[in-house]
Amino acid sequence: MKEKEFLNIIKHTLKSELIGDDCAYLKDLGIVITQDNLVEDVHFSRKFATPFELGFKAAMVNISDVCASGAIPLYLTSALSLPDDIEGSFIKEFYEGMKSACEDKVEIVGGDITGSGKIFISVTAIGSDKGRKISSRKNARPGQKIVVSGEHGSSGAGLRLLCDGKKNPQKFIQAHLMPRAQIQFSEKIAVSQKTDYAMMDTSDGLMDALSQIAQASRVLLEVDFGKIPFDKDLKYFENFEDIILYGAEDYQLIATVDDAQDLTVIGSVESSDVYGVRIKYSDKLIFYTKEDVEKKLYKHFKEQE
Amino acid sequence: MKEKEFLNIIKHTLKSELIGDDCAYLKDLGIVITQDNLVEDVHFSRKFATPFELGFKAAMVNISDVCASGAIPLYLTSALSLPDDIEGSFIKEFYEGMKSACEDKVEIVGGDITGSGKIFISVTAIGSDKGRKISSRKNARPGQKIVVSGEHGSSGAGLRLLCDGKKNPQKFIQAHLMPRAQIQFSEKIAVSQKTDYAMMDTSDGLMDALSQIAQASRVLLEVDFGKIPFDKDLKYFENFEDIILYGAEDYQLIATVDDAQDLTVIGSVESSDVYGVRIKYSDKLIFYTKEDVEKKLYKHFKEQE
Repeated sequence: MKEKEFLNIIKHTLKSELIGDDCAYLKDLGIVITQDNLVEDVHFSRKFATPFELGFKAAMVNISDVCASGAIPLYLTSALSLPDDIEGSFIKEFYEGMKSACEDKVEIVGGDITGSGKIFISVTAIGSDKGRKISSRKNARPGQKIVVSGEHGSSGAGLRLLCDGKKNPQKFIQAHLMPRAQIQFSEKIAVSQKTDYAMMDTSDGLMDALSQIAQASRVLLEVDFGKIPFDKDLKYFENFEDIILYGAEDYQLIATVDDAQDLTVIGSVESSDVYGVRIKYSDKLIFYTKEDVEKKLYKHFKEQE
Repeated sequence: MKEKEFLNIIKHTLKSELIGDDCAYLKDLGIVITQDNLVEDVHFSRKFATPFELGFKAAMVNISDVCASGAIPLYLTSALSLPDDIEGSFIKEFYEGMKSACEDKVEIVGGDITGSGKIFISVTAIGSDKGRKISSRKNARPGQKIVVSGEHGSSGAGLRLLCDGKKNPQKFIQAHLMPRAQIQFSEKIAVSQKTDYAMMDTSDGLMDALSQIAQASRVLLEVDFGKIPFDKDLKYFENFEDIILYGAEDYQLIATVDDAQDLTVIGSVESSDVYGVRIKYSDKLIFYTKEDVEKKLYKHFKEQE
């Protein structure tokens, strides 16, 4: 898929300032909106995920996008296109999974159903800006700290286990199948920061989020690898450092902020003529351009297949 | 597809009052929201529709749903899942089609792209309730007039021509490929009515909309067939009366209102122990239950295949 090329065509065709972040911020209405598709045998397989897990994840990824904006996640709508062999029990479990992800905080308010050859799921999430400062990935400024909501790599490890036909450790598999949106971290940032901040979820990997913010804000993000939180059992995996940096779908949040009190700081924003990400390992310092990150992400993705 | 059965399962699982109309009305945010999927070889074929026409229609059907609520259509987001053989030119023309349907009134603010085997399009539309009274299909009350925004049957005739490999009359084919949402009629109703009203678009056919309102409001809708506006050239089609009543995708609006001044009245709302639709032909009066309408819709749909 030529996704990034296609997104550029869309931006060029629509000439819209509102395309670029995970959510579009509609200031006149006081809301943010985001929409994502999940396609069978592209994003998920009925072999690996139960209908409940699928519904859970479909809701969660969109709630996470709203959290990345700093808005209060409030409502979801869904549209499902389903093959003829799908039973009513699938629908029931799917929506129970969605409800579980919503945790009495978010309400599901629409549900279109149509026919299809494979399962297509599209979910839209709406959040409110009330009392919140909304993020933009263009907002990183030299002098800010880079903060993170939690551990990285667990979901990537879980996917590797699933692909290898393994069922343990369960904690990694659960991290992959049932990720949690970082609602509290999002609120903490969006309510406490007095100045503009960048925030993204790490759905496509920590390095992808860092790189996207660096490019959009035209800065250098320097990260101390030793400060990134991760589950210590990841060390039993081959190339565990790559799983932490490039493994996707942890749905943690990273932000660049002026006020990092009580937050987990992993690095800082630096001014630079060349935009990108610099990782400080214990024994070396490596600079990654946008292209470097994209190549590594692609290579990491291919190794999972 | 067991769409209606599945929608009942969703309603039951979610226990939400907000599911039932084409749009969900989120009063706390002052907005309505609707989301629809279009699936290749289920809802459209690349053989019949250009990318421009497809984008146009994907936007229009959602704008039409917002119009049915009476809200002001303001924003669209889209998520496309596309096969590998799709070119950049497809994306460009598709979004130009969407923009054309938006007519400077509606802004497209998001565009997710993912991979897929077949083309899968999901569009979400947002409208504002500012200065508007929002409709519900539960709002029909005995004594109200049934009003309609325009002609029915042209889109159904266009689909029949396309299925038969014909290219004329162009007006019917255009009505099918490039339907127009009834923004002005929607505004007229939503601004002028002092009392609650029901409104729906006729995307699934005029009879479907009448029947849905009758069931949700627990009333009888009596329609004078001779008063339904239609293109007189429809008379050259076999069973043209069925095309007018059951042909889908005209995207006109019907409403039940107390104040029908300057509007096209086609019938009236009556109280009844049995809910449904009664059609007054020149020589007969026929009553249709919910089941009658569903059977006729299915039969009409099958005849198109």
